[in-house]
Amino acid sequence: MSGAGAFLQKARIEDQFWSRTRETVRREGIPYQWRALNDQIPDAEPSYCMRNFRIAAGRERGVHAGYVFQDSDVAKWIEGAAFSLRWHPDPELEATIDSAIDAVVAAQQPDGYLDTYYIINGLEKRWTNLKDNHELYCAGHLIEAAVAYYQVTGKRRLLDAVIRYVDHIDSVLGPEAGKLHGYPGHPVIEMALMRLYAVTGDENHLRLAKYFVDQRGQRPLYFEEEDARNHNAFHWKDSYFRYQYYQAGLPVREQTEAQGHAVRAMYLYSGMADVARETGDAALKDACRRLWDSAVKRRMYVTGAIGSSEYGEAFTFDYDLPNDTVYGETCAAIGLVFFARRMLTLEARGEYADVMERALYNGVISGMQLDGKRFFYVNPLEVLPEASLKDYRKGHVKVERQKWFGCACCPPNIIRLLSSLEDYIYSVDGRDVYLHLYVGGGLETEIDGRPLALDVRTNYPWNGAVAVTVNTAGRFALKLRAPGWCRRWTVRINGAEVAPGVENGYIALDREWAAGDRVALEMDMPVELVRASLRVYEDVGKIAVSRGPLVYCLEEADNTRNLHLVRLNGVGAGEFEARWRPDKLGGIVELQSPGSIEADAAQSDALYTFDDAVEARPARLTWIPYYSWANREPGEMRVWIRA
Amino acid sequence: MSGAGAFLQKARIEDQFWSRTRETVRREGIPYQWRALNDQIPDAEPSYCMRNFRIAAGRERGVHAGYVFQDSDVAKWIEGAAFSLRWHPDPELEATIDSAIDAVVAAQQPDGYLDTYYIINGLEKRWTNLKDNHELYCAGHLIEAAVAYYQVTGKRRLLDAVIRYVDHIDSVLGPEAGKLHGYPGHPVIEMALMRLYAVTGDENHLRLAKYFVDQRGQRPLYFEEEDARNHNAFHWKDSYFRYQYYQAGLPVREQTEAQGHAVRAMYLYSGMADVARETGDAALKDACRRLWDSAVKRRMYVTGAIGSSEYGEAFTFDYDLPNDTVYGETCAAIGLVFFARRMLTLEARGEYADVMERALYNGVISGMQLDGKRFFYVNPLEVLPEASLKDYRKGHVKVERQKWFGCACCPPNIIRLLSSLEDYIYSVDGRDVYLHLYVGGGLETEIDGRPLALDVRTNYPWNGAVAVTVNTAGRFALKLRAPGWCRRWTVRINGAEVAPGVENGYIALDREWAAGDRVALEMDMPVELVRASLRVYEDVGKIAVSRGPLVYCLEEADNTRNLHLVRLNGVGAGEFEARWRPDKLGGIVELQSPGSIEADAAQSDALYTFDDAVEARPARLTWIPYYSWANREPGEMRVWIRA
Repeated sequence: MSGAGAFLQKARIEDQFWSRTRETVRREGIPYQWRALNDQIPDAEPSYCMRNFRIAAGRERGVHAGYVFQDSDVAKWIEGAAFSLRWHPDPELEATIDSAIDAVVAAQQPDGYLDTYYIINGLEKRWTNLKDNHELYCAGHLIEAAVAYYQVTGKRRLLDAVIRYVDHIDSVLGPEAGKLHGYPGHPVIEMALMRLYAVTGDENHLRLAKYFVDQRGQRPLYFEEEDARNHNAFHWKDSYFRYQYYQAGLPVREQTEAQGHAVRAMYLYSGMADVARETGDAALKDACRRLWDSAVKRRMYVTGAIGSSEYGEAFTFDYDLPNDTVYGETCAAIGLVFFARRMLTLEARGEYADVMERALYNGVISGMQLDGKRFFYVNPLEVLPEASLKDYRKGHVKVERQKWFGCACCPPNIIRLLSSLEDYIYSVDGRDVYLHLYVGGGLETEIDGRPLALDVRTNYPWNGAVAVTVNTAGRFALKLRAPGWCRRWTVRINGAEVAPGVENGYIALDREWAAGDRVALEMDMPVELVRASLRVYEDVGKIAVSRGPLVYCLEEADNTRNLHLVRLNGVGAGEFEARWRPDKLGGIVELQSPGSIEADAAQSDALYTFDDAVEARPARLTWIPYYSWANREPGEMRVWIRA
Repeated sequence: MSGAGAFLQKARIEDQFWSRTRETVRREGIPYQWRALNDQIPDAEPSYCMRNFRIAAGRERGVHAGYVFQDSDVAKWIEGAAFSLRWHPDPELEATIDSAIDAVVAAQQPDGYLDTYYIINGLEKRWTNLKDNHELYCAGHLIEAAVAYYQVTGKRRLLDAVIRYVDHIDSVLGPEAGKLHGYPGHPVIEMALMRLYAVTGDENHLRLAKYFVDQRGQRPLYFEEEDARNHNAFHWKDSYFRYQYYQAGLPVREQTEAQGHAVRAMYLYSGMADVARETGDAALKDACRRLWDSAVKRRMYVTGAIGSSEYGEAFTFDYDLPNDTVYGETCAAIGLVFFARRMLTLEARGEYADVMERALYNGVISGMQLDGKRFFYVNPLEVLPEASLKDYRKGHVKVERQKWFGCACCPPNIIRLLSSLEDYIYSVDGRDVYLHLYVGGGLETEIDGRPLALDVRTNYPWNGAVAVTVNTAGRFALKLRAPGWCRRWTVRINGAEVAPGVENGYIALDREWAAGDRVALEMDMPVELVRASLRVYEDVGKIAVSRGPLVYCLEEADNTRNLHLVRLNGVGAGEFEARWRPDKLGGIVELQSPGSIEADAAQSDALYTFDDAVEARPARLTWIPYYSWANREPGEMRVWIRA
């Protein structure tokens, strides 16, 4: 099967759902995070990020502060801010980005090296702890920032700097004798180099990305040698995943399970897919498919969250999906979106886009407050506020989003994803034009050297009607995703119903189009009751509620405390009512359903009784989209409800 | 209400259930643990305990090894071994105990001090960290050992040594100016001093016990001052319980919740009850009652396990009783037995004996392998072997009992409790003779200066028939506990049914007895289906199965994997069959019941579906007593089953 082709970067978004969120990101998130990077948010943990660059450049005196990977925060911010200029030119923001780039580039060393942790603490120590000290991770994010800013503005300052840095890295690491045979403890540079290669066409950039993928996990294990040579600590020595924490316990082509740190896993698999696509490496594609299946078909929450355990921010084992102690890091869901998009370029299968959509509409955007100013690191599916305070195993599960984090990977990651969301919607493969996500806006591109323009209008995800207008004549196939959640849909062209075939999850409309042709896709979007595989022991006997791509939840604010006592009690999906609530939580379709709340018939205070008299008292339940939870007073929340 | 009087130490046990267990303790446990204390168990973590004493006495060179509280292991072993001599005189064992005592006493310092950690590491540092370094805890256990050995053998060597040590402690700690106003970070010395006082009659011993109780948690907080003075670390600074980890955040009379480290809590509350009984302090009694209610009525597992969280080995909050991440330390259940016994001396209420029995027959003896050679520290109510290996939050939940522990508090604690079990059965208050537990054997004591002899025969806990023969004439009240688990019972005297009253959970048979009078108590002992309070969110929709005092469980070895798919599906208690299985697990009443195992009707591999077709396939379920689990091949186990 061939892939869905290249994703397009000239799409536009004019969409009631996403435009609001993206405007929030642009107006609030980007300036807010710039202040955060400059330690200007009162009562928030300081970042130290920009300060480190000033110190590294000799513009200020001081010690390096924050994590070893602190540099990556400004890189991700530059990338996200750059993307926003594409859909909202803003000379003032561009000037701010230029000043950030100036600060970054000023720290670059004569040999091209650019990592403030080692510039400040001693260059003689660099490249001694690839396993844990994130040099290649920070380099990767700088590359991604440079490519994005160059693509949007044409400015080469940061691009030239990172090319010099990559040259330096290439001189230090690689398979050749005399070089270190290392690779990153935290992947990202693999996919970054592939993006760089797409811009520079420099085969060295492809070769280096391929080297990092191929060398990973080879025997003798580089991280073991590095630890021995440099007396580094191995934090995961007594863990069950050991080097698989870094996805480095085996050569990547031999890996079959999504293991270890979930964000690292997603970034590595994304880079693997990029390299596989470019090189056509079948074994690497197979590995990507196996790891996809492991992550998505056996280890993913219904919200698209991944990483069941706070320990190692990691995957655990098949079907281990606890709702209350989950990690579900925002960045891991974002990484899953990256991975899904790349799998689509390997194979045009709707299941990849289904997962991309699931993560995006649920576990990704749940990470940001509706006002764009607070963030979740952890995205639980079940919250009991008292437990978060008093039960240590749930201490990482916050009931309210936080202003900032000492380890602030998630907030700028949301920004760079949402600012570039147009890149995830459409792809073109030969004469096939794919619509992977249903987002209002449109597209201007070329097929076979001829212009192609589409206009898309929809009120998705609140209803399932999508109107596509073809604005250019020509023969091509419009491939509309038939979402996995949708049981029934119809397509009309210029008002007449058609009966198109479905190929691998895409409705194929292959015809000679005339300018002005109107395609109306109407997807049934009823409430659905979701059941997890019986192997998921934490969800047995429970259901989740979804409508379209959105997973819903019960929140205390709308319902009651003691949500564990709520039962659907056989209520069917047809008994749910959906209602548009423009003034609630930024505008949502709220669901209402009957249900019951259990009560002790005997009103006993006894902890244990032989009397099983439990009454089910009728209740009216109010459901909100999962992503919108925790935007009111703190309280309980549950996704999985007893059936 | 008056208490149930003093517990008697002249009872004998001849009981098919307990005699076997106690013989295992005597033949296997006591010699095994002596070898463990002397580092002679292959493949087990070394103890270093006896070696530390030899080093402290100058008999061997070396450094202190093991925990700061390592001394307590031999103290508990001496105590347990001493108790066993009471019911099984054994000159060889007595000689071994004498050698252990010799080793201990040889390390005593001229001023009476006796703690190997500080003797070896520098006496100038002693009494600088009462909070964490367990000096008073080790002293308490030495006192308990000395009292027990003196009471059983009349030998004073260890008793005299600990009296000198207590004199030294009394000279260092206390309310007087010039003394440290400290108290133990880990209680036990309070109840130990009360036992010592019972033997010595020395008011100083009572006064010191009372001081430790009264001073605890007073402002300014001693532990804060001590930390500041000696630059000690405060490990629980960022925990929610802080000084309540030590039950020292408030004066004990102001404490209302069972908080912090569960074993420390039980030992403290036991000491408080001892002091309250001796002094008649009403406020202290009230505090004991409040803490009892908190621990038992809102924070206790159905097995009598306490301590919901591995973090701090501690209580969490009301109704937070997770079955799979539970701590439920064996020592905490033992401590609950201590506390219950002491509450009975404050108030003759059957509920205390009910809890004592619940813990004893379930969460205490589950801590020891049937062969007496392996031990659980943690006693879970739900085990999934893969999770214990791969889910960090369940890493403390072992699927198999261990040979020994670096921190080996539990194994000798089981020994000292079971070796002295006769002390928990009967008590006498004036002319009232209480039977708190139904254990075969008998009693010879005095009431009002006249002899009293009882003979008890029973097959408890396997059936509910108890035959008591009164072997002495006289007027007294026989008070037989009517267990909380028993809905219906009959009493016959010399074959004729009587209709006695029930007072606070005790069947009162107050009459002029003739020698040879036969009392036959017949308690209905059907299978019962237990429901937890609806506030226990982890148990909602589930039931546990019990019969008499025993809680049952499903184990993979008898049933199936995927025990989470088992449902009772409306099966009633009357559909259970009980069968005596003499050859199974040391002899048990096994239960069998119908039930169902859920299966996916569509045989789908999908992680999430909209298809809720779940089939309930009929199954025959086999239930074993909880205490006997994990005595065969490792596998899944569950106490709470879906209803």
